[in-house]
Amino acid sequence: MARPQTDIEAGRTALLEVVDDLVRKRGSVDISMTDLAAAAGMSPSNLYRFFDNKEALLEAVAERFFAEKIRIMVEVTESDLPVRDKMYQYFARRYLASVEQYEAEPELLKSYLEIGQQHFEVVRGYVDLGDHYLAIIVAEAMDQGYFQGLSIDEAVSLINQMLHCYTNPDILFYIGTTKLSVTKLAMIVDAVFQGLGKKIATQSVPGSHMKIVS
Amino acid sequence: MARPQTDIEAGRTALLEVVDDLVRKRGSVDISMTDLAAAAGMSPSNLYRFFDNKEALLEAVAERFFAEKIRIMVEVTESDLPVRDKMYQYFARRYLASVEQYEAEPELLKSYLEIGQQHFEVVRGYVDLGDHYLAIIVAEAMDQGYFQGLSIDEAVSLINQMLHCYTNPDILFYIGTTKLSVTKLAMIVDAVFQGLGKKIATQSVPGSHMKIVS
Repeated sequence: MARPQTDIEAGRTALLEVVDDLVRKRGSVDISMTDLAAAAGMSPSNLYRFFDNKEALLEAVAERFFAEKIRIMVEVTESDLPVRDKMYQYFARRYLASVEQYEAEPELLKSYLEIGQQHFEVVRGYVDLGDHYLAIIVAEAMDQGYFQGLSIDEAVSLINQMLHCYTNPDILFYIGTTKLSVTKLAMIVDAVFQGLGKKIATQSVPGSHMKIVS
Repeated sequence: MARPQTDIEAGRTALLEVVDDLVRKRGSVDISMTDLAAAAGMSPSNLYRFFDNKEALLEAVAERFFAEKIRIMVEVTESDLPVRDKMYQYFARRYLASVEQYEAEPELLKSYLEIGQQHFEVVRGYVDLGDHYLAIIVAEAMDQGYFQGLSIDEAVSLINQMLHCYTNPDILFYIGTTKLSVTKLAMIVDAVFQGLGKKIATQSVPGSHMKIVS
């Protein structure tokens, strides 16, 4: 008889903590199902009840790693904030979440980033998801007359490049949190809105979705 | 009797080629003076006539690695180009020099970048030198009314962050030369000038160094 879903979920969560411990001890060295079973004090066949295979385990690790950032992106894009504030929050809150991980356990973060590099096929979907949410904000800004002459994809790519220091947690290890700051991030977001694409001819350009209702 | 300087210089250049070969074979693994002497087919005491110690060798490696970029920065800052073009050239030409290294021998570049990380004390001076030349361009732009409300250091730091994808050659390995392009780089430089700092009140603000000569 299959265990109730909640038990499986609880078991997975506990096993991901064991993965943390293994990564703390061994760094980004590849972890096999056998290693994880041994560290968790269970038989490999028992472990397979929680994760079908190594890929499923890696996907669960990635899901947990990105959960907070997805929560932030959903919250920000669904909010009623002005579009410039949305973009600021989109980058600043994710950046601060990375800083928190970095300051709590830099070595653990570094190892997970290396694991992510080694298994980029698992990470790619989350990168695309980030672009998807940024595209929603960019489209809203375009409706207000920003980024004229650029396609959504071009604007997303340029904005990602201009804010790269605040989205790639690896940069924390290069540049550090003294030179990086949310104050600077806000200035860069301002430069994005003021400077990216052709200038807006008028103060406010009505977007194509706006209809005159009178 | 000491050899003429030119012989020593020629020997150093040849030895740096041997270092390339060692790095090609072994990656970023630390190279000792003994290893280099063996690979060059000379005695360690002979090698010490070319490089006083390991630090001197590393400094010579860094000097050669950064030579082209320094040449570019000197040329651009000394040119008569308009300041916006200067900044574009400052970033674009260095970026293209990195792309050339990346496309010729990606593994060799990656290994040298890793060596640079391991011996950051040797690299730091070159990073500071880059900031020095960028500060010259920023000061010129400020004299023309750009970046109002920012100090030179703040502007240099923000601009470095906004262009980070085009200055850190490591990013070539993450993002690749499909998504990075000098066209996008030019758009980011435009956004820097149009969007960074307070807006310019008038079309042209005379700089403090300008004197009315009539």
